Amino acid sequence: MAALTGPKQDRSRATRQRLLEAAVSCLAEHGWAGSTVAVVAERAGVSRGAAQHHFPTREDLFTAAVEYVAEERSQALRELPAVGRQEAVAALVGLFTGPLFRAALHLWVAASDEDQLRARVTELEARVGRESHRMAVALLGADESRPGVRESVQGLLDMARGLGLATLLTDDRARRDRVVAQWARLLDEALG
Amino acid sequence: MAALTGPKQDRSRATRQRLLEAAVSCLAEHGWAGSTVAVVAERAGVSRGAAQHHFPTREDLFTAAVEYVAEERSQALRELPAVGRQEAVAALVGLFTGPLFRAALHLWVAASDEDQLRARVTELEARVGRESHRMAVALLGADESRPGVRESVQGLLDMARGLGLATLLTDDRARRDRVVAQWARLLDEALG
Repeated sequence: MAALTGPKQDRSRATRQRLLEAAVSCLAEHGWAGSTVAVVAERAGVSRGAAQHHFPTREDLFTAAVEYVAEERSQALRELPAVGRQEAVAALVGLFTGPLFRAALHLWVAASDEDQLRARVTELEARVGRESHRMAVALLGADESRPGVRESVQGLLDMARGLGLATLLTDDRARRDRVVAQWARLLDEALG
Repeated sequence: MAALTGPKQDRSRATRQRLLEAAVSCLAEHGWAGSTVAVVAERAGVSRGAAQHHFPTREDLFTAAVEYVAEERSQALRELPAVGRQEAVAALVGLFTGPLFRAALHLWVAASDEDQLRARVTELEARVGRESHRMAVALLGADESRPGVRESVQGLLDMARGLGLATLLTDDRARRDRVVAQWARLLDEALG
C-alpha cells in the first residue's frame, strides 16, 4: 500500500479542509437552498471534480462540514484550562452562537422536510449531541451518578440551543448574559 | 359607516381564519421555500384574489399566520385552571412543539437570510416573546420583583425553545420529560 502521508496526502487533506470550511460558511450565509457542491467548490477555489472526489453527494459534504466544525469547536473547549462553573456555562452557551450554529440550524430545518437528508442529520445530531454532553460534564465537573445531575446538564444544553436560536435574528447579548449568569447559579446548586 | 358585523363580515372573518390556519400548516410541512400565497389559497379553498385581498404580500400572510396561531395557543394556556409548577412548566414547554413551532422555526430561519422578512419576523418574535414571558410569569406564579426570578423564567423559555428544536427531527419525549421534571424542581426552588 502507498504511504498515507507525503505531499500529495497533505494537499488532499488541505483541499478537504478548505471545502469543509467553505461549506459551513456557505450554509450559514445562504441556507440549504443556496448551498450546493458547485457553489462551495468555487468558494474554496477547488475544481468541481476534486470536490466530488472528496464528497460524492451534497448530503455528504454538508453533514461532514457541520461535524468537522463542531469537532473543532469541541476540541477548543476541551483544551480550555480549568475554569469556574460560571465561565464553563458561558463557554458552553458560546457553542450555540455564530456561523457553526447558523449552519447547523439551516441543515436541521432542511432535514425536517427532506427524507434523504433527515436520516443523515438525525444521526449526525445524535453524535454531536452526545459529544457536547460529554464535554459539558467534564467542563462543569459534574458527577452524573448523583440523581438529577444528568438532566440538569441536558437542560443547560437545551437552554443554550434556545438562546442560540434567539440570537439568530437579534443580538440580545445583554439579556443572554443575565440569563446565563442566573442559570449558572441554579446549576451550581444542582451540581453541588 | 356600515355595520362591522353581519353575514358578510362573518364570511370574511372565516376566510381569513382558514387562510391563517392553512398558512401555518403549509409552512410547517413545506418550509418557507414551498410556501406562497397561491399554495395557501388553494389549500384553504379560497381564490387567489380573495387571499390577496386579505394579505397583500407573502410576508403579510405568513407573519400574521404565526402570530394568530401563537395567540390561540397562549389563550388556551391562559384558560388553564390553576396548576402546580411541574404542570405549568410542562405546559410551557408544550408551546414549543408541534406544527406552530415548526412553522415559526421555518419563518425564523428564512428571515435570517432575507432582509425583507427579517424586520417583520424580528418584530413579530419580540411581540410573541413578550407575550410568552408574561404568560409564563402568570402560570408559574412568579414574583419578578425578587432577584433572579425574571432571568430564571427567561431561561426556562429558552430551554423550552431548545427542546422544541431537538424534537424537530426525533421524538425524544422520554428524555424531554426527564429534563423538564428536573428543571421544574430547580425552578421551583429559585422561584420560592
